[in-house]
Amino acid sequence: MSATAVLLLSCPDQRGVVAATSDFVFRNGGNIVSAQQHVDEPSGVFFQRVEFTLEEFSLRPVDIPVGFAEIQQRFGMHVDLRFNTTPQRVAILASKQPHCLYDLLTRWRSGELPVDLRAVISNHPDHGDACEFFDTEYHHLPVTAATKTYQETEALRILAKHDVELVVLARYMQILSAEFCSAYPCRIINIHHSFLPAFVGAKPYHQAHERGVKLIGVTAHYATADLDQGPIIEQDVVRVSHGDSPEELARKGRDLEVAVLARAVRAHVQHRILVFGRKTVVFD
Amino acid sequence: MSATAVLLLSCPDQRGVVAATSDFVFRNGGNIVSAQQHVDEPSGVFFQRVEFTLEEFSLRPVDIPVGFAEIQQRFGMHVDLRFNTTPQRVAILASKQPHCLYDLLTRWRSGELPVDLRAVISNHPDHGDACEFFDTEYHHLPVTAATKTYQETEALRILAKHDVELVVLARYMQILSAEFCSAYPCRIINIHHSFLPAFVGAKPYHQAHERGVKLIGVTAHYATADLDQGPIIEQDVVRVSHGDSPEELARKGRDLEVAVLARAVRAHVQHRILVFGRKTVVFD
Amino acid sequence: MSATAVLLLSCPDQRGVVAATSDFVFRNGGNIVSAQQHVDEPSGVFFQRVEFTLEEFSLRPVDIPVGFAEIQQRFGMHVDLRFNTTPQRVAILASKQPHCLYDLLTRWRSGELPVDLRAVISNHPDHGDACEFFDTEYHHLPVTAATKTYQETEALRILAKHDVELVVLARYMQILSAEFCSAYPCRIINIHHSFLPAFVGAKPYHQAHERGVKLIGVTAHYATADLDQGPIIEQDVVRVSHGDSPEELARKGRDLEVAVLARAVRAHVQHRILVFGRKTVVFD
Amino acid sequence: MSATAVLLLSCPDQRGVVAATSDFVFRNGGNIVSAQQHVDEPSGVFFQRVEFTLEEFSLRPVDIPVGFAEIQQRFGMHVDLRFNTTPQRVAILASKQPHCLYDLLTRWRSGELPVDLRAVISNHPDHGDACEFFDTEYHHLPVTAATKTYQETEALRILAKHDVELVVLARYMQILSAEFCSAYPCRIINIHHSFLPAFVGAKPYHQAHERGVKLIGVTAHYATADLDQGPIIEQDVVRVSHGDSPEELARKGRDLEVAVLARAVRAHVQHRILVFGRKTVVFD
Repeated sequence: MSATAVLLLSCPDQRGVVAATSDFVFRNGGNIVSAQQHVDEPSGVFFQRVEFTLEEFSLRPVDIPVGFAEIQQRFGMHVDLRFNTTPQRVAILASKQPHCLYDLLTRWRSGELPVDLRAVISNHPDHGDACEFFDTEYHHLPVTAATKTYQETEALRILAKHDVELVVLARYMQILSAEFCSAYPCRIINIHHSFLPAFVGAKPYHQAHERGVKLIGVTAHYATADLDQGPIIEQDVVRVSHGDSPEELARKGRDLEVAVLARAVRAHVQHRILVFGRKTVVFD
Repeated sequence: MSATAVLLLSCPDQRGVVAATSDFVFRNGGNIVSAQQHVDEPSGVFFQRVEFTLEEFSLRPVDIPVGFAEIQQRFGMHVDLRFNTTPQRVAILASKQPHCLYDLLTRWRSGELPVDLRAVISNHPDHGDACEFFDTEYHHLPVTAATKTYQETEALRILAKHDVELVVLARYMQILSAEFCSAYPCRIINIHHSFLPAFVGAKPYHQAHERGVKLIGVTAHYATADLDQGPIIEQDVVRVSHGDSPEELARKGRDLEVAVLARAVRAHVQHRILVFGRKTVVFD
Repeated sequence: MSATAVLLLSCPDQRGVVAATSDFVFRNGGNIVSAQQHVDEPSGVFFQRVEFTLEEFSLRPVDIPVGFAEIQQRFGMHVDLRFNTTPQRVAILASKQPHCLYDLLTRWRSGELPVDLRAVISNHPDHGDACEFFDTEYHHLPVTAATKTYQETEALRILAKHDVELVVLARYMQILSAEFCSAYPCRIINIHHSFLPAFVGAKPYHQAHERGVKLIGVTAHYATADLDQGPIIEQDVVRVSHGDSPEELARKGRDLEVAVLARAVRAHVQHRILVFGRKTVVFD
Repeated sequence: MSATAVLLLSCPDQRGVVAATSDFVFRNGGNIVSAQQHVDEPSGVFFQRVEFTLEEFSLRPVDIPVGFAEIQQRFGMHVDLRFNTTPQRVAILASKQPHCLYDLLTRWRSGELPVDLRAVISNHPDHGDACEFFDTEYHHLPVTAATKTYQETEALRILAKHDVELVVLARYMQILSAEFCSAYPCRIINIHHSFLPAFVGAKPYHQAHERGVKLIGVTAHYATADLDQGPIIEQDVVRVSHGDSPEELARKGRDLEVAVLARAVRAHVQHRILVFGRKTVVFD
């Protein structure tokens, strides 16, 4: 893979945006390897993702914002510029359950998940040996109601030390404070074990069993101060029946959690997500 | 298909139920063509569906309840006895949208849906010609807030005249009164255009678009006095994206509505559903 | 919906294509409402679909090819220009089974399928009344081994009379001759009742039952002289089990056939398909 | 979970089988916790799975075959008696790719997969450290064309030493000899990375890419001497598009392989599979 830059743009829908953007890339010697667009009809907002090669690009990465400024101003764009040059720095927060954590570790080790995994933080001691085996830093930060503020401060300190760009909640069972969430806006991905907005809150598999649904689902979303209300990134479901106990629902759900969380993390680190209000545009 | 009887049983879970039931069928010369069972763990309730041939059965259908009474009493069973001898008498209630209605009519005409369709009732005049073509009775019963009670009375009169056993709401957009619902307990099937319990109430596709979900779903359930709260029979979902407008969601949803409603009706008329509180046991 | 034009382009992958195309639209006063691109890595072929508004476009539709010729030549493009101004003229070929035919008729009648349905041709007399009800021309052209050439000639004459642009085989059980297929290259859509390339040829549901597969599928593809080998447009599957007889597989499969054929026809008439060798690029 | 026995029965379909079997369990003080049946229509063969509690059963496990012999003979049954008392002894064969192996190890470690994992055998040295971490025996048995017979002999010796009951091929890329397969009839589970019978043989994801399919699938099956022809246990698919390179197909496929192999192994060790010719009956 050659190094690329990704422009994530949004602006009022108007003529000439695509022409201006693609001309900018072409004029400067880039090759567009991927381009997608979307118009949100009710609001009339235009979204675009343009990925182009940096190899023979005439602007240095650091100079691209200045070079693009005229277009940005002309169209009243919000611009987010990303680079696929170095893998993103990621930390994982986990609790007792191992499945999402081990899955991410396995994908990372095999090279499938192209991130720079800096640390795993858990309020349980259980995963220290796994992190040692997978060769990543492990921090056991126990938490109680009394120590929650302190524990979050410690976690934030570790994240800051590693200059972490993305935090993945791999079935982390603690509710993050509004302060924590706002420190990483649209950069904390949570996996909720229900098909949101159904079954918010605690024990969603038990809620699903109680309600007698015929499918259960999971939802990967950005964590915000409003619990289970953040922008949805990805969802999936699996068929269940009357024969499935709450424990069976949880077992079937684990496979979904693993898959959906991994897909959401992949979409994020490939710069394919634009957040718009409490919705996301996720380009393929 | 030879004529069969179906025993739908529930009782406290205990030893010997399966042995007693299968012995009853065997002793009387029946052949069990299908048998399924389920235990609801939290409540300890045992459910069974036993379908057996009537051809050489020593009891006449009308005498089976008496013949089975001893077993029923011994185990404290709730027993529901059904027969696959004549197709069930069915009526469809529809509003303006044709897709579910036409689909049911097509399946009925081709012989795929083994029911005795007696009447279609609609609060719109639109489907009269279709019902004439498909050769079923059509009743146009317009409804306003002022005439709702009268309109329901008329509809109930038509249902009674045909001795209807099952009422199918094929995207019928009127809310049925508690009285209407209680006249056909667990015998009115509705299709709701969301993945319940998400998006109850009006305009679920717009709600789904607003929330930014990545899958939309539909739910077939028995109609009860509590809107959108009845026992769920069947559900399914389809993948959507940021690119789908509310109109696109509705279009994709229509295909789901058609399929899920047809599956639910099939399960009902094949006597494969037991209702338990507000949940269902749906045997394959 | 305002009138739009669609450019379906392919050429060797190179810099500046996107810039040139979007500049062409912008220069002439069009607004790009949708743009997608794809590079086939092994061959290095670039594909693009650009849809733009005609309302204030400075070129008349008839003049667009000349206006675009310079770009076309510069990049060595294959260009296919389509217009969303009038619905495409479509004919359906059907045999005895009604499900796909009735579904298309229902979608057409409700306005969901935006085509100009000109005629239904069948080798069986069964659907004359349905076509009368749905208000489209019906041609009963019986066929035997001896009359096949004559029957196809008659069918081609009807298609020609209506200047048909797309032929839909709605479970048409006759094998079309190579001559027939080549008269409508990439303009005949067939629905095959298996997950191709598994189970080519006759009675695929029986083959699937025999093999004991756990999912069955269907495939919509362009018909070519090589039976069941044409470019695949769309596929889907449904879960089955040991409990499903060949008849049950066929019943479950019918719902798939209906849905997949409708999706393929929609993709075609929305000009979202590019054919490349025996593969398709189907843009969302 | 209390200890249970499982009777897997097949015999010509006839009256009284269910009655006799359930009476046998009841008479001896067992409680049927699960019972399923199936009739294969073309052949008229009846299949049943009956699981019952051993806790107060009047026969010792070792005496059940004698106690059941009369019924077995009366109905001409094939009987397979299994016990859920001790977890089954399992070995995994793997090659270079880690995903299926790590997934099984993770499920085993977390207690989700209730087996007694005795050994991992691989023709590559790569997984020694993982097996050490997960605390299971690792055997590196390199193989070349010249040493294949010797290598298989070694592998069989290890399997015999551990008295292995089930062999799982976790993307083991070597073709097993007919001798090896016949040593563990219906006790070797392979995961093939295509939706069989499509794309047998080598590089199925490349074949799928070449053919332009819109879904890819995987198949778990019992390994037999006929490559990719053994009885299918479980299959699943995932949607792909023209945009997916062969490498992307492989990446998406890996998630399927992991899930489908785990489901097949679970069904096997829960004694839910009956093999019938080259088909399987897999009870829920």
